[in-house]
Amino acid sequence: MLRTTAQLLQRQGFHATGLKQILDESGAPRGSLYFHFPGGKEQLAVEALHETTARIGRAIERTLSGHKRPQDAVRAFVHGYGEVLRRSNFVEGCPVATVTLDSAAASEPIRAACSAAYTHWHGQLRDGFVAAGLRSNRADELATFALAAVEGALILSRAHHDTHAFDVVADQLAALIHAAVDSPRPARRGPRRH
Amino acid sequence: MLRTTAQLLQRQGFHATGLKQILDESGAPRGSLYFHFPGGKEQLAVEALHETTARIGRAIERTLSGHKRPQDAVRAFVHGYGEVLRRSNFVEGCPVATVTLDSAAASEPIRAACSAAYTHWHGQLRDGFVAAGLRSNRADELATFALAAVEGALILSRAHHDTHAFDVVADQLAALIHAAVDSPRPARRGPRRH
Repeated sequence: MLRTTAQLLQRQGFHATGLKQILDESGAPRGSLYFHFPGGKEQLAVEALHETTARIGRAIERTLSGHKRPQDAVRAFVHGYGEVLRRSNFVEGCPVATVTLDSAAASEPIRAACSAAYTHWHGQLRDGFVAAGLRSNRADELATFALAAVEGALILSRAHHDTHAFDVVADQLAALIHAAVDSPRPARRGPRRH
Repeated sequence: MLRTTAQLLQRQGFHATGLKQILDESGAPRGSLYFHFPGGKEQLAVEALHETTARIGRAIERTLSGHKRPQDAVRAFVHGYGEVLRRSNFVEGCPVATVTLDSAAASEPIRAACSAAYTHWHGQLRDGFVAAGLRSNRADELATFALAAVEGALILSRAHHDTHAFDVVADQLAALIHAAVDSPRPARRGPRRH
């Protein structure tokens, strides 16, 4: 039920997603909905966002630990995200992005769940960059920049029905992280050596 | 009526926005809705997106022509966007972003209007960068990267209720554009000189 909810949220947001559609598409019995989620659709959405946060968090972790260089990890992650989107014919993507835009203004529990998702993923990226040798400030800002660019690439790709924005974002972020890994620690904007 | 529609779309998306709410908040008579927009809510949304495309396009134009250096223009635009968001208590932002995520999968006219918006703004940025001396390829990819990063900053800011992502994105984009303006034309990734 949570996975179905997450799929519907990413495709169409919170408002268009009804309990009946969640029950129909998940095949779950109505009784279990009210038993497990007495808070109704809002509670279901919040728990689906938490589940998504953990699931994408595991993917970020796997990608960071599966690559020696953080620029290669970010490139692989961004390309993989674009590929998932393309394979879904540009209807899926990220439930947190859609729900932030359509419901953060109306529901504080939903906004808090979206904020927690971005805080979690940001922390993972920042820690991965620091572990790879980036200065802490630079790791922090590149993690924010990467999250923003990737979620924005999702928007552009869903609008244009192509993954070009993911390709551009992957290349640009990889170049920035590459430069940051290799820049001398004390300099603020040292010359690139590659 | 179009401006009210755009405001509601950016705050809550297409699905949550009803004709009754548009009429109530705009104060327009019901008769004029059906006279001017016989296609109903979808037509109203598409025309509101076109109106937004032109309005934000004029703001991009003004910002580019108001600054000598494109990095200063982009920094000013991104900060201004964050400021608009902050002043609205993080409920407004960009109707194209919200509607792309909640409705591009369900309505081809809406998806096409969102795609046209991003194509228009991308072209303005690219042309502005080229006019400032960037190589055409670099201008093209930086325009895509900038659009993605800015729309992603909107998502992060609406989730966290702060404009930190806009500050980071403004700084990072300004540094990239600065480096691109000053890099020697033929080199693909020349050394930064600043």
